Amino acid sequence: MKTFVDKLIEAIRAKKSILCVGLDPQIRYIPEYILDEGKDKAEGSLFEGVARAIVKFNKEIIKAVAPFATIVKPQMAFYEAYGHWGVWAFEKTVKFAKGQGLLVLEDAKRGDGGDTAEAYAKGHLGKVTLWSVGQTCHIRGYGVDAMTINPWIGTSCLSPFLEVAQEFGKGIFVVDKTSFKPNSEIEQLVTTSGRKVWEETAKLVREKWSRYSEGKTGYSNVGVVMGATYPEDAVTMREILPASFFLVPGYGAQGGGGAEGVIRGIRDDGLGVIVNSSRGINYAYLRDRFPNEPEDFAESAGKAAEFARNDLNAALKRVEKLPW
Amino acid sequence: MKTFVDKLIEAIRAKKSILCVGLDPQIRYIPEYILDEGKDKAEGSLFEGVARAIVKFNKEIIKAVAPFATIVKPQMAFYEAYGHWGVWAFEKTVKFAKGQGLLVLEDAKRGDGGDTAEAYAKGHLGKVTLWSVGQTCHIRGYGVDAMTINPWIGTSCLSPFLEVAQEFGKGIFVVDKTSFKPNSEIEQLVTTSGRKVWEETAKLVREKWSRYSEGKTGYSNVGVVMGATYPEDAVTMREILPASFFLVPGYGAQGGGGAEGVIRGIRDDGLGVIVNSSRGINYAYLRDRFPNEPEDFAESAGKAAEFARNDLNAALKRVEKLPW
Repeated sequence: MKTFVDKLIEAIRAKKSILCVGLDPQIRYIPEYILDEGKDKAEGSLFEGVARAIVKFNKEIIKAVAPFATIVKPQMAFYEAYGHWGVWAFEKTVKFAKGQGLLVLEDAKRGDGGDTAEAYAKGHLGKVTLWSVGQTCHIRGYGVDAMTINPWIGTSCLSPFLEVAQEFGKGIFVVDKTSFKPNSEIEQLVTTSGRKVWEETAKLVREKWSRYSEGKTGYSNVGVVMGATYPEDAVTMREILPASFFLVPGYGAQGGGGAEGVIRGIRDDGLGVIVNSSRGINYAYLRDRFPNEPEDFAESAGKAAEFARNDLNAALKRVEKLPW
Repeated sequence: MKTFVDKLIEAIRAKKSILCVGLDPQIRYIPEYILDEGKDKAEGSLFEGVARAIVKFNKEIIKAVAPFATIVKPQMAFYEAYGHWGVWAFEKTVKFAKGQGLLVLEDAKRGDGGDTAEAYAKGHLGKVTLWSVGQTCHIRGYGVDAMTINPWIGTSCLSPFLEVAQEFGKGIFVVDKTSFKPNSEIEQLVTTSGRKVWEETAKLVREKWSRYSEGKTGYSNVGVVMGATYPEDAVTMREILPASFFLVPGYGAQGGGGAEGVIRGIRDDGLGVIVNSSRGINYAYLRDRFPNEPEDFAESAGKAAEFARNDLNAALKRVEKLPW
């Protein structure tokens, strides 16, 4: 079975891109005509109208960025805020992105233990148990290629996710070092070993949570979130986790600085990092670089994705670490 | 505005119960005839059939336990595993429980930062932004009374949740010390202060994350999860957090031992603890104490809830800390 990380590397080389495009629908930024259309098409609630608008908006964004992005990252919070209709929009978005040949990384940061973690894992990455003609059967849930996991609950949380990920060839990104400012107080606590909590967590990823996760390429299917706001820490993270991919959020929007900083954790072979941009691409039509009429929002998104891809590639070239 | 913690205390005294009943639908334990009924009623997918079965099952459980439980705790993992239909079942469950006069604590352990945390908070505890007749409007999301939050991302995560919770008079339980075995490696790390990470997190709850959260009763609307598997730690937790409610999972099912242990964190006024039981009540018909025909599953659930309530009250009486 070709696992997530192998598909990811193949896609990076095929598209010459380490760009991940976040799909974070926020109605304050979605063009009014899309919201109106969604509302007109809805048969029932206002939530349905927003959900239909989100799907329409995302489809246009996905088509526009597909040539430049290797993977897309829908952020579940922005979907489930609209209840079951929002989750319906999430499902439609995942399906459409996969149809466009993109890998899908669900950013849901789920974390729980035991049976509960198993339920999350099966629903999001594997198959859920159903009931039909008097017996249980198993059907694919959300069908994403990878998802983000919150490590707080430890092995009781990770084990069920890892089992399901392994069975179905999926990827996991452990939320270790986030890009928010202020950066998490907990991640930064210093332990008696002299290491910070986020470093200890990275060690857990290496020593406990990466077992049996190796893809055919030698890379692990268990990666980490490594926020762009502290580029120097990416070097330490790489020392601890030589075979893991880093998902780097905060490029642009969260003050993570330029392309130079966000690729700090790259390996000598030019692999090991994917860089996410969400709002800077989704809502490029509202910004300075590629401003546009609301009707042409997707054109701006495509240009912004191309720009980001090229910006990252130029940085990779400067440090002589192009992965193709 | 009467806030969550004030309603909780009022309900504890009115029902003479500190029992929280988890609503964790797992189809391997739900009677077949309920699953068949759900399937027969579904117009479309198998997921719809399971969702309808979950709603039917939960309604019967809720009616049966309502006299003995102060609050119910649906665990989102078991719903969202079934996609948007599962979330539909969650919404129906919340609505029905509130209609039965129960408080609803959503166990979703969400955690993210910035805009994303705001989206979660508004959707689950507050109002979401919608679009209607050419302008934005705000409509209640899931409408739960309180929810569990994962503290990993720190203040960037907690702040948006706390703001929304305060605006709408809702409660938050920070997932600090869970009941799983093995217990989280991260929670147990010792910091240079000599305190464990979970103790540092409790300190953050007190010093940073409980501000302006006081209800009319003097209790805080920001509580913590305090797993039953380490009762001695509940005493330390109480020292750090005198005014917070503890949600204690693991009573029964996760090896958390008897009622004596789970109420270890109780205050002298008999308040400050709610104790959760999920499977031991939901699926009591399959167990030794109140076995029953599948058709009478709800009767067993009611008896198990009454038994648990009485068991906890007997323990409170023995330590002379009855809160009524």
